[in-house]
Amino acid sequence: MSKMIEYEDASDEVREVYDDIRATRKTDYINNFWKVLAQHPPTLQRTWQVVKEVMTGPGELDPLVRELIYVAVSVTNGCEYCIASHTAAARAKGMTEAMFGELMAIVATANMTNRLANGFQVDVDEVFRR
Amino acid sequence: MSKMIEYEDASDEVREVYDDIRATRKTDYINNFWKVLAQHPPTLQRTWQVVKEVMTGPGELDPLVRELIYVAVSVTNGCEYCIASHTAAARAKGMTEAMFGELMAIVATANMTNRLANGFQVDVDEVFRR
Amino acid sequence: MSKMIEYEDASDEVREVYDDIRATRKTDYINNFWKVLAQHPPTLQRTWQVVKEVMTGPGELDPLVRELIYVAVSVTNGCEYCIASHTAAARAKGMTEAMFGELMAIVATANMTNRLANGFQVDVDEVFRR
Amino acid sequence: MSKMIEYEDASDEVREVYDDIRATRKTDYINNFWKVLAQHPPTLQRTWQVVKEVMTGPGELDPLVRELIYVAVSVTNGCEYCIASHTAAARAKGMTEAMFGELMAIVATANMTNRLANGFQVDVDEVFRR
Amino acid sequence: MSKMIEYEDASDEVREVYDDIRATRKTDYINNFWKVLAQHPPTLQRTWQVVKEVMTGPGELDPLVRELIYVAVSVTNGCEYCIASHTAAARAKGMTEAMFGELMAIVATANMTNRLANGFQVDVDEVFRR
Amino acid sequence: MSKMIEYEDASDEVREVYDDIRATRKTDYINNFWKVLAQHPPTLQRTWQVVKEVMTGPGELDPLVRELIYVAVSVTNGCEYCIASHTAAARAKGMTEAMFGELMAIVATANMTNRLANGFQVDVDEVFRR
Repeated sequence: MSKMIEYEDASDEVREVYDDIRATRKTDYINNFWKVLAQHPPTLQRTWQVVKEVMTGPGELDPLVRELIYVAVSVTNGCEYCIASHTAAARAKGMTEAMFGELMAIVATANMTNRLANGFQVDVDEVFRR
Repeated sequence: MSKMIEYEDASDEVREVYDDIRATRKTDYINNFWKVLAQHPPTLQRTWQVVKEVMTGPGELDPLVRELIYVAVSVTNGCEYCIASHTAAARAKGMTEAMFGELMAIVATANMTNRLANGFQVDVDEVFRR
Repeated sequence: MSKMIEYEDASDEVREVYDDIRATRKTDYINNFWKVLAQHPPTLQRTWQVVKEVMTGPGELDPLVRELIYVAVSVTNGCEYCIASHTAAARAKGMTEAMFGELMAIVATANMTNRLANGFQVDVDEVFRR
Repeated sequence: MSKMIEYEDASDEVREVYDDIRATRKTDYINNFWKVLAQHPPTLQRTWQVVKEVMTGPGELDPLVRELIYVAVSVTNGCEYCIASHTAAARAKGMTEAMFGELMAIVATANMTNRLANGFQVDVDEVFRR
Repeated sequence: MSKMIEYEDASDEVREVYDDIRATRKTDYINNFWKVLAQHPPTLQRTWQVVKEVMTGPGELDPLVRELIYVAVSVTNGCEYCIASHTAAARAKGMTEAMFGELMAIVATANMTNRLANGFQVDVDEVFRR
Repeated sequence: MSKMIEYEDASDEVREVYDDIRATRKTDYINNFWKVLAQHPPTLQRTWQVVKEVMTGPGELDPLVRELIYVAVSVTNGCEYCIASHTAAARAKGMTEAMFGELMAIVATANMTNRLANGFQVDVDEVFRR
């Protein structure tokens, strides 16, 4: 089990990130990912900054769609932690069981056709070139 | 360049799939992927059946969101053909340039944090276990 | 285009590997992969040694099956060079068009179910644990 | 641990798939993968249909070779569940310990040379282009 | 070919990033990656910020080692653009041909043993758990 | 848990490899990876030979840098065993906590930009072509 830095034991710079996570997410809970990253404060700060902007900043994609995309990537990469945490986040933002099933079906299908395109060495259609 | 089977040269079973692709997509254009898969008719039939059900069948996720997820997987896997074709499909279904940029940002961020979770060996939080 | 070292320009140690490739494969043709690796002789020698042992050494799997497995991995990884070269090698060893289609179907299906198992977070059955 | 749907608790459509799995495999045992997929019946039905056709349908590749290919993909992707279940399936179909060792050696070698071809940016030989 | 935004046509926010790239790298040349990302200014800004901090910020790893690690990841993922650009960057920072060969050998070997560990389902030694 | 072959139970050919591991690493400890590979002696011998040459043979990259590269690949692939064992090896060779954090930051960043280059379909700059 990786070492986690609890709020009480955190340096000021780490605590500032924790405070922002809590404020942004409107919860006191800080999940393990951040408490482990806190071992290297610059990575904690930079990663949180990016995740915050990309997942909660202004944009045309709504929060649930953003989480579905995050889960799709994590499942494709087989990242157990990310699958567990972002599936939970997607549920919290309104993902139903049916949506989850559909999401998995699309991810599975894309992984299937990605390999068919590779293996059959399909050339890109002229109309798909920008 | 992989051999492609044109409509005129197709066997009856292949032509049946081509006709269904045209009817489902409301276009005469059949993209290279299907014309190459037609070299192995069972794979053509099965793959089209799955893609059709998953991408155009009933469900809670709207067609654009389905394409965004498809692109997210294809980018993660680095499948050039699939990126080109599904980005085009997503645009045809309403993806704006801003949405594309946001999609890329999420895919990039997820690929980044997937590795941080792996490398720091983060344990899954009890609250994320179902 | 990466620099390739031709037989005539090769050092003695590189030429020795080239000679062994020719003798083992019973052809004068040396494919680009080896001519590029020759830029770093220790990698050329070591890689050829491993490939030779694994692909042509004694064993229970016949040469065609070995090539099918090689193609399966290369398609999963999306390595264009390896797909092209090992598909050619598999054909030379007897892979029919039907076998190629079946191979692609299995690779595609496995890539699909691999993600379903990840995404649905399926626990390994007790009976599958050794 | 993901929720699994047991035979007794299954809806008619899920039970129909379970019955087909049992009949096709000539065993009462239904492995966790299917019991978890049953949470989303369309994905259960579609996935079983594809796996059944590809792995047990008519074709030129024998059942053991199909399983070896399945294992090769699963190992390359690092899918723990799929490695465990398909290694067991391959053993049930006749894979010896020596074959397993040879399979692993080929998968490892292909993963090695895939990266050498990427990293050295090797151009595809004209003779490998179809 | 993806649309690229040239310095002359860039908005003020994009130009500011371009200026920082030029100043940081002490060259007028802006490579395609940034000119394409400029289509989505927030992604351009954020990505440059991260790359700048991670690759040129203070730290214990010297600039050449950072590039070697970048190349290792890019080769493992098979990202053609990233392999080409970061191999060039590594050479500019002092990577010799011998170092490149050694780097490739390590990347290849790690990709090989990663799959052996997966496939043989090796348990983590107690001494490696922190 | 995979079957492991202990020194006492090993055949002469396996024992010879174990002896070389011990001599090379100046420790009696043989980690699980090798004890599991010993199930297939040719794979054990070949893999050890490659790892020994690449990681401890003569070269311009120092031992710590070699381990950092190994970890970068293993994290990218998500190989739990390899991450644990090579992180431990890197620490034994002098990797500080700060270096580990920087390594993770680079690996994460490269995985991020690899996908941006894929998704935005960036063409390789003429200056990066050799």
